[in-house]
Amino acid sequence: MQSIQDPAAPSGAVILLSGGLDSATVLAMAHAQQYQLHTIAFDYGQRHRIELERSRRIAGKYNCDHRELRIDPGLFLGTALVDPKLNVPDYDPSSTGIPITYVPARNALFLAHALSLAESLQAAAIFIGVNALDYSGYPDCRPEFITAFQAMARLGTRTGLAEKAIRIETPLIQMSKAEIIRTGAALGVDYGLTSSCYNPDLVGRPCQKCASCALRAKGFAEAGLLDPLMS
Amino acid sequence: MQSIQDPAAPSGAVILLSGGLDSATVLAMAHAQQYQLHTIAFDYGQRHRIELERSRRIAGKYNCDHRELRIDPGLFLGTALVDPKLNVPDYDPSSTGIPITYVPARNALFLAHALSLAESLQAAAIFIGVNALDYSGYPDCRPEFITAFQAMARLGTRTGLAEKAIRIETPLIQMSKAEIIRTGAALGVDYGLTSSCYNPDLVGRPCQKCASCALRAKGFAEAGLLDPLMS
Repeated sequence: MQSIQDPAAPSGAVILLSGGLDSATVLAMAHAQQYQLHTIAFDYGQRHRIELERSRRIAGKYNCDHRELRIDPGLFLGTALVDPKLNVPDYDPSSTGIPITYVPARNALFLAHALSLAESLQAAAIFIGVNALDYSGYPDCRPEFITAFQAMARLGTRTGLAEKAIRIETPLIQMSKAEIIRTGAALGVDYGLTSSCYNPDLVGRPCQKCASCALRAKGFAEAGLLDPLMS
Repeated sequence: MQSIQDPAAPSGAVILLSGGLDSATVLAMAHAQQYQLHTIAFDYGQRHRIELERSRRIAGKYNCDHRELRIDPGLFLGTALVDPKLNVPDYDPSSTGIPITYVPARNALFLAHALSLAESLQAAAIFIGVNALDYSGYPDCRPEFITAFQAMARLGTRTGLAEKAIRIETPLIQMSKAEIIRTGAALGVDYGLTSSCYNPDLVGRPCQKCASCALRAKGFAEAGLLDPLMS
């Protein structure tokens, strides 16, 4: 912790990699910016565990320093993404409010893991693929949450006090799903490696009924591209 | 998550319980306020693992709903509390800056776990025994960090959006160590169950040389009480 990083060396970045479309795009963007790439996927008892295998494959493509971290599923009650007794609802464009797929304070907890790792590695930035346009209404995907997390991170770390605060990078936050897909496609992202579905079958095929499948399909349609998962 | 809590029922509180003097006092204070008590201890590869056993014993005294959560030690590099190759320094009252016992963004990560659990359980508050007077200079023990965490928690949760933000309670933050000990003693805390040392021996006996041992000894002396661990 006492050593001074070589200013000529590329900076490190910690990327939250869920194995979905958004985080795969973010990883490609960080890669294009020549960061040293440290990826984290979380095993928190999610029903869409296929994303862990997808994360490993995507991280492998970019030669990332990849970690799979476990979070006790008992922290997340009342969410259809973890509790097998709760059903993932079909997409309903008329629904309002925070859906039952909300996972309590998940992004705060994911980002806090990334913050400890980033400070340990003297990384300059944390990348997270949150998006506040084509999203599911989760409070922890909004710009005001990210700004508040950044302020907390600055005050609660050694590096923050030294005025070298770890930056929280959210390159997708104001993009439509179609813009995200076009950006990723231009960077060569293989979306066939990703998984977006909240409720895939045992071999990982998407349900094509949940909100996440619907947003993905709408994004590919608007981008004028075919989803390789659908071919 | 859809149920409405009985307004007559006592509120729940999540308490971060390290097994040290401060968190044991905080637990007694939350107990005196008649909260339903949910305690968390963390196994993060710390050299003072004796605190996990102490946490269990203290939680048992108060019939808490106790959890021991594991955090990958690989998140915490360059700290003498985790890395066995780094020595815990002897207490030096003239030293300035953040000591090598600082654990990167630990309180942000601990509090984020508590936030997910508190929202899952519909708990009203999170208690943490941070202290900004007789402390070791860690950035994440200061009031400004706690205030920023509270703001982030409000913006990043369903309950926060519903204007029922989970409160972050820090009853010790402006107390001297002597005041903490007097408060706990008045509430009947058995400090013989606690462990404060950063570098205990294999059976948990304190080193009596580290900063944490020194602050504890000073606190008992100023409180005019005998430390049961020293008898």
